[in-house]
Amino acid sequence: MRISATELAGLLNGKVHGDGSVTVDRPARIEDATAGTLSFLANPKYEEFAYECRASILLVSHSFQPTKPMKPTLIRVDDVYAAMALLAEKFADQLQQETGISDRAVIDPSATIGQGVTISDFVIVGANCVVGDHAFLHPFVYLGANSTLGANSTLHAGVKVYYDTKIGSRVSIHANTVIGSDGFGYVKSEGAFKKIKQLGNVVIEDDVEIGANVVIDRASLGSTVIRQGAKLDNLIQIAHNVEVGQHTAMAAQSGVAGSTKIGKDVLVGGQVGIIGHIQIADGTQIQAQSGVTRTTKDNDRLYGSPAFEYAKYLRSYAAFRQLPQMNSQLSELQKRLESIEKEIAQLLANS
Amino acid sequence: MRISATELAGLLNGKVHGDGSVTVDRPARIEDATAGTLSFLANPKYEEFAYECRASILLVSHSFQPTKPMKPTLIRVDDVYAAMALLAEKFADQLQQETGISDRAVIDPSATIGQGVTISDFVIVGANCVVGDHAFLHPFVYLGANSTLGANSTLHAGVKVYYDTKIGSRVSIHANTVIGSDGFGYVKSEGAFKKIKQLGNVVIEDDVEIGANVVIDRASLGSTVIRQGAKLDNLIQIAHNVEVGQHTAMAAQSGVAGSTKIGKDVLVGGQVGIIGHIQIADGTQIQAQSGVTRTTKDNDRLYGSPAFEYAKYLRSYAAFRQLPQMNSQLSELQKRLESIEKEIAQLLANS
Amino acid sequence: MRISATELAGLLNGKVHGDGSVTVDRPARIEDATAGTLSFLANPKYEEFAYECRASILLVSHSFQPTKPMKPTLIRVDDVYAAMALLAEKFADQLQQETGISDRAVIDPSATIGQGVTISDFVIVGANCVVGDHAFLHPFVYLGANSTLGANSTLHAGVKVYYDTKIGSRVSIHANTVIGSDGFGYVKSEGAFKKIKQLGNVVIEDDVEIGANVVIDRASLGSTVIRQGAKLDNLIQIAHNVEVGQHTAMAAQSGVAGSTKIGKDVLVGGQVGIIGHIQIADGTQIQAQSGVTRTTKDNDRLYGSPAFEYAKYLRSYAAFRQLPQMNSQLSELQKRLESIEKEIAQLLANS
Repeated sequence: MRISATELAGLLNGKVHGDGSVTVDRPARIEDATAGTLSFLANPKYEEFAYECRASILLVSHSFQPTKPMKPTLIRVDDVYAAMALLAEKFADQLQQETGISDRAVIDPSATIGQGVTISDFVIVGANCVVGDHAFLHPFVYLGANSTLGANSTLHAGVKVYYDTKIGSRVSIHANTVIGSDGFGYVKSEGAFKKIKQLGNVVIEDDVEIGANVVIDRASLGSTVIRQGAKLDNLIQIAHNVEVGQHTAMAAQSGVAGSTKIGKDVLVGGQVGIIGHIQIADGTQIQAQSGVTRTTKDNDRLYGSPAFEYAKYLRSYAAFRQLPQMNSQLSELQKRLESIEKEIAQLLANS
Repeated sequence: MRISATELAGLLNGKVHGDGSVTVDRPARIEDATAGTLSFLANPKYEEFAYECRASILLVSHSFQPTKPMKPTLIRVDDVYAAMALLAEKFADQLQQETGISDRAVIDPSATIGQGVTISDFVIVGANCVVGDHAFLHPFVYLGANSTLGANSTLHAGVKVYYDTKIGSRVSIHANTVIGSDGFGYVKSEGAFKKIKQLGNVVIEDDVEIGANVVIDRASLGSTVIRQGAKLDNLIQIAHNVEVGQHTAMAAQSGVAGSTKIGKDVLVGGQVGIIGHIQIADGTQIQAQSGVTRTTKDNDRLYGSPAFEYAKYLRSYAAFRQLPQMNSQLSELQKRLESIEKEIAQLLANS
Repeated sequence: MRISATELAGLLNGKVHGDGSVTVDRPARIEDATAGTLSFLANPKYEEFAYECRASILLVSHSFQPTKPMKPTLIRVDDVYAAMALLAEKFADQLQQETGISDRAVIDPSATIGQGVTISDFVIVGANCVVGDHAFLHPFVYLGANSTLGANSTLHAGVKVYYDTKIGSRVSIHANTVIGSDGFGYVKSEGAFKKIKQLGNVVIEDDVEIGANVVIDRASLGSTVIRQGAKLDNLIQIAHNVEVGQHTAMAAQSGVAGSTKIGKDVLVGGQVGIIGHIQIADGTQIQAQSGVTRTTKDNDRLYGSPAFEYAKYLRSYAAFRQLPQMNSQLSELQKRLESIEKEIAQLLANS
């Protein structure tokens, strides 16, 4: 999307000051904007950046009074933040233009494809799949047999979805993520691991977003479930039969072992590990790099490996940093005690 | 595989009670089975679920006596667990039907392809590759030049195998895993990193299973080796020249640095890190999130970062949780000691 | 590359002892070389391996005097290390032979492709992309619209590059890595997460190498930047708006949260986590598995989670291992103190 200052002003109901014919193709921060970008001055504390700003267009409020000369064409609007939010949507939308169904894609004749669906080059849609209206499958996506993808959902390049997966509407899954691989289940028998067949599937509800290079394993029986509105960052591991609750957010590189159930509105920090077969209660908050080894209570805040109460962990860790001094102090006390014991023995002998 | 109760009973040498014409297409747990699924009641403590069960077919033992009305068609068998294990194999097998060689795959004319091999759409098999009988290459697999894949091995969608990799028989590698990328080797010279060429390869022996989005780097010289029967979960990092021993299991998101040799029957927990150039002895067990920094002895059990004996770590960590109290106790002892010292000084002065 | 002893000797200006017609196709370590490989004896302490060595060709120095019979054909050279380094380059180069542009690739007509570029089967190059001379795109690479790839850069199989990414010259990115996925940005509003559009991009400067299955998110506004000469190992997470400095190296499975700026010549160990919105000063060294939660000073050396000075952490951790004993010692002191207090009370009563 390349757009001129005059066109932008029309869109935003704003007023141009300067050359209306300059064009921009993307937004930028005021402190590192370059020619061809659009930036904005909303917070007065950034005003100094405005005079150095190399953006081609700068959005400002009607009340802004420059005190130095400025390079960008200005567009004055009523509410700078609202204008930027509107443009952010516009710039984002342009990136996902419906282009129909590529003849380099391979779509099983038994699949059902909705209206306005985009299926890019080198996509595979398996037998009996159902793809909802306006779903978007980027290149190299693999949607295994008997899977469902809801309306307005996006699978980015290289996402691999194994058979029988159910994905809701308005779901977004980023590049090279794997959904539905086998859970890690074996029994050791005569010294070798024997595989437990993983016969369940994965269910992803509406409004979920999943980052890149994530893995969500299929259930051994039943379903691994990601509930409505949950958000998963990159490189996360979700084991078989896990459930992630509504509106729960997990930061990058965290992992959850098998059959654990995470409640609603939980916040999981980066690189957190959660063991299997426990319940993480609604509203629990888990600090980055923690290792959670037991069921939690609502709104628990946890830290450490194994994790316990956040505030207590901080106190223990503060003391841990002082441990060498504590150790010296202890040795010194011991020496003083010994000398006291001698003196008392003396006193007792003398008394 | 859609199969009727009558057909199932024939297969399992069981007896149908109810409508023999109902069909199922997958197994489910008794507590969350839905219409069209097959479930089972083996453990009597689940009996209450049976009366609510919405499966179309339920496997029960000959001795089971229902005390309430039930919805599913029942199939009575001698051994419910054995019957389910048999069916699990059947359901799993159906998912990997040999379909021959896609004409959308690109197979170098110099490659040797065995009998009954499946090569899916958009697969690439490089020069001089050898693919064993009944191997299965899912879509978007890349098998680099001079690589070998043994009989009955499966590469799931998007697996990337660099040149010169040797993979044994009955190996399964899950989606988007990378085998044979360059090891991380540089020397710093005049302030910049100079790459050490990685000229070795990766060898994966028979009966290994590897999860999704794993990375196994090629050796700098020689081979990175995964020994027979080892099992690796998702998102694992195996650096150059590492060896993972026979029947060793590693949980998700663990990582092993260069040239470390892991023995047989080792258990590595999730998110464990193991430094380079050490030996992990046979039977070692490493607790999740540990960081192993030194060579271990047979059957060591380790915890912590850096890791030491499991039981000792638990004791130290229990004390860590009490550290603020220990600190207060220490301060209190110090005060009492000071007041004793004054009293003794007094006593000595008086004596 | 299959080459005979006679040809090798010509290349290295060396002298053949034995059968000049034997051929090799790859280098190997002296201790595990097999027929068909080339090995070398540079360090005299490996001499014993030489007599058992099964390589077809062995490079030795002019001064080497065998004391036992040997199987390989020998090639005597002036400097064994220099000869091996030369051959390592040769063996590595052969692996990336320019093969031109596959007619199974999809290249947007608006893209600009340099001289000597290799574009393999099933590669997609988007609209307005610019690909520099001798760049190499392996199979299943996706280069999103408006992206730039510099001269002599390599994208390995399955790399996914989102739109607007700028990649410099002599950059190498390993298989299935994702560049430019959305940053993890939401605001919670009425109980649900609302996405903050991620409108920035990723910039990767010259001479960067990135491992396999890495994720580098695009900036929310502005750019996520990997500076010249930085090296990233496998499975690393780089969040939106992060900057990684020149000649900085990060080991596998480490992660950096949003807007953190890492300086030059920093060394980050494996599985390290770094929180958002801090500065890691030039020359900082961070021990594996640490969690860095605050801005550092030049050449800081850090360890622990949360991390503090390396040497202090080691001392605290040594004391942590002794904590149960410290605890017993403390209890014992307390008992002795109590008995002293009684004795003093006695003495005071008697005095």
